[in-house]
Amino acid sequence: MTEQRPASNPVTMREVAAAVGVSVATVSLVVNNKKDARIGADTRRRVMEAIRELGYRPNALAKNLVQGSSRFIGLVADAIATTPFAGQIISGAQDEAWKHGFVLLVANTEGNESAEREAISMMLEHKVLGILYSTWFHRAADIPAALRETNFVLVNCFSPDGDSRAVVPDEEQGGRTATGMLVDRGHRRIAFVNTTTAAPARDGRLKGYRAALEAAGIPFDPDLVLDAIPNQEGGYGCVPDILRQGATAVFCHNDRVAMGLYDGLRQHGLAIPDDIAVVGFDNQEVIAAHLRPPLSTVALPHYELGVAGVRLLLGLDRVEEHALVRIECPPVERDSAGVRR
Amino acid sequence: MTEQRPASNPVTMREVAAAVGVSVATVSLVVNNKKDARIGADTRRRVMEAIRELGYRPNALAKNLVQGSSRFIGLVADAIATTPFAGQIISGAQDEAWKHGFVLLVANTEGNESAEREAISMMLEHKVLGILYSTWFHRAADIPAALRETNFVLVNCFSPDGDSRAVVPDEEQGGRTATGMLVDRGHRRIAFVNTTTAAPARDGRLKGYRAALEAAGIPFDPDLVLDAIPNQEGGYGCVPDILRQGATAVFCHNDRVAMGLYDGLRQHGLAIPDDIAVVGFDNQEVIAAHLRPPLSTVALPHYELGVAGVRLLLGLDRVEEHALVRIECPPVERDSAGVRR
Repeated sequence: MTEQRPASNPVTMREVAAAVGVSVATVSLVVNNKKDARIGADTRRRVMEAIRELGYRPNALAKNLVQGSSRFIGLVADAIATTPFAGQIISGAQDEAWKHGFVLLVANTEGNESAEREAISMMLEHKVLGILYSTWFHRAADIPAALRETNFVLVNCFSPDGDSRAVVPDEEQGGRTATGMLVDRGHRRIAFVNTTTAAPARDGRLKGYRAALEAAGIPFDPDLVLDAIPNQEGGYGCVPDILRQGATAVFCHNDRVAMGLYDGLRQHGLAIPDDIAVVGFDNQEVIAAHLRPPLSTVALPHYELGVAGVRLLLGLDRVEEHALVRIECPPVERDSAGVRR
Repeated sequence: MTEQRPASNPVTMREVAAAVGVSVATVSLVVNNKKDARIGADTRRRVMEAIRELGYRPNALAKNLVQGSSRFIGLVADAIATTPFAGQIISGAQDEAWKHGFVLLVANTEGNESAEREAISMMLEHKVLGILYSTWFHRAADIPAALRETNFVLVNCFSPDGDSRAVVPDEEQGGRTATGMLVDRGHRRIAFVNTTTAAPARDGRLKGYRAALEAAGIPFDPDLVLDAIPNQEGGYGCVPDILRQGATAVFCHNDRVAMGLYDGLRQHGLAIPDDIAVVGFDNQEVIAAHLRPPLSTVALPHYELGVAGVRLLLGLDRVEEHALVRIECPPVERDSAGVRR
């Protein structure tokens, strides 16, 4: 291996040509992989060797310019810094993009509209193949006008007008699965601590809860559905109501609510799952697996949302023009729901 | 505003020229902002108006190619998906990059070496101005050879040979600050639950703990320093030892350890902070503010690490060639340390 040179003085195509004793045009044809060019196998091999030995790096910018488009996919996210969820969407999108030779350009807007405009504009100027527009919680989103200048897929959000392709978690199936974990263990009085925030997660998980009860022949009791701010404090505050209703099990809107509920139940001297069984939602890293007892929950499929978004953008998975694709929320069984009967 | 066209058929410079009634060359000079070109103010204004009205987007790829370098800064991260910390480094780096007209190219490697090589290679081909190489926990890192082909700054990690610029959290000051919060409240027997993992955080925070005790004239008692796996289970398991040592306060290696400690202390019927005061480290979103009582802790400055990395890369902050820059870990006062006396 030869000594590496600083970026300010990179190896040129001319130097590669000189080392091999061929023309710059020949090196260019090899670099750009023109299979039909009449270059002998031996020459091609010697050029490739010189490229490796000298450390020549083809200029992706020039290549992209010739092709009229880049190998970029844009991803606009509204909250990279403040939620662990965005990272998983990014990771899934990036893995799938790379698999197909694309690079992900990530922009974080923290919900700021002018940052969003600037990010999309930057991506369009870099001739992205398309843009994934993602939100950190599942919701309806206003589609920025500039997005419509390119291919785009909404990830974890959807257009209220239903005029765009979108990939979202299947909230209803998730709610059904979570409630089903408790039904399967023989519970009949199952409380549901829902969120106070109007959102697809609120409506979908409630629908799923009701569907699971109905499938088990358990009558729906509206007194068992409570609303709480979707965090630890909300879960903690619900405990007196849950006990008053004689619930033997609780399905929580998310893992943070379950964490607060744990604290409240403990203060009442109640054991999980023996006195009260608990199931969460999200499978939030750093919480779910590490509560005492470890929390049974349902996972939000963020990684899979990122993968699915890229596959739609690249046309690898074909759906109707304005399809809303729902991704499964799988169960994660730990100890807080008790033993299956 | 005119109707927007799909990306496959973008507005060209020729169309802008035709709309204004000038040459393509004139439009190009305006777009590329050649101030010294002899173009009248009126013509320049009319070209800019047409650009806006027609929705023409200059081709950043072409511009970058002409300049021989791009407006990209690369960021290689080893764990975007599995830790909430990486997002804050990305967010800080992106905000600072944008402020100076640069775009962040983010690559997530999840610690995979071949993904890392590929990511760096892609960045070099896109002629990045430089690369930030970051790890999700503060540690010594092997520097990939390809990194040395460009400018780079290590973020949250450092070269064991000390031959590279690096930005890391000031672990010692953090440990001193955390312990100081307990000393200030009159505690003399302060346990320190350190991590079992060899790392700068382990050595630095212990040094800080000892320095804070020494400054307060409290003799160091090695029996008060315990080692635990740095998560909830580790913290929970330490409780008997802590009680045996007669500690009245505990400084925890991180917030997850504090969360487990809370569970264990509660099982012994002990109240925080009245029976035992607790301080964490990290200020981890979704945990620290939402424990019962809310956790007093010290923040890891991830956002600031990202900002500082970009500033070094752009030469905005000047340091010695191989400097190790330490960023402050600020205190975050909540309720678990008790009231200051």
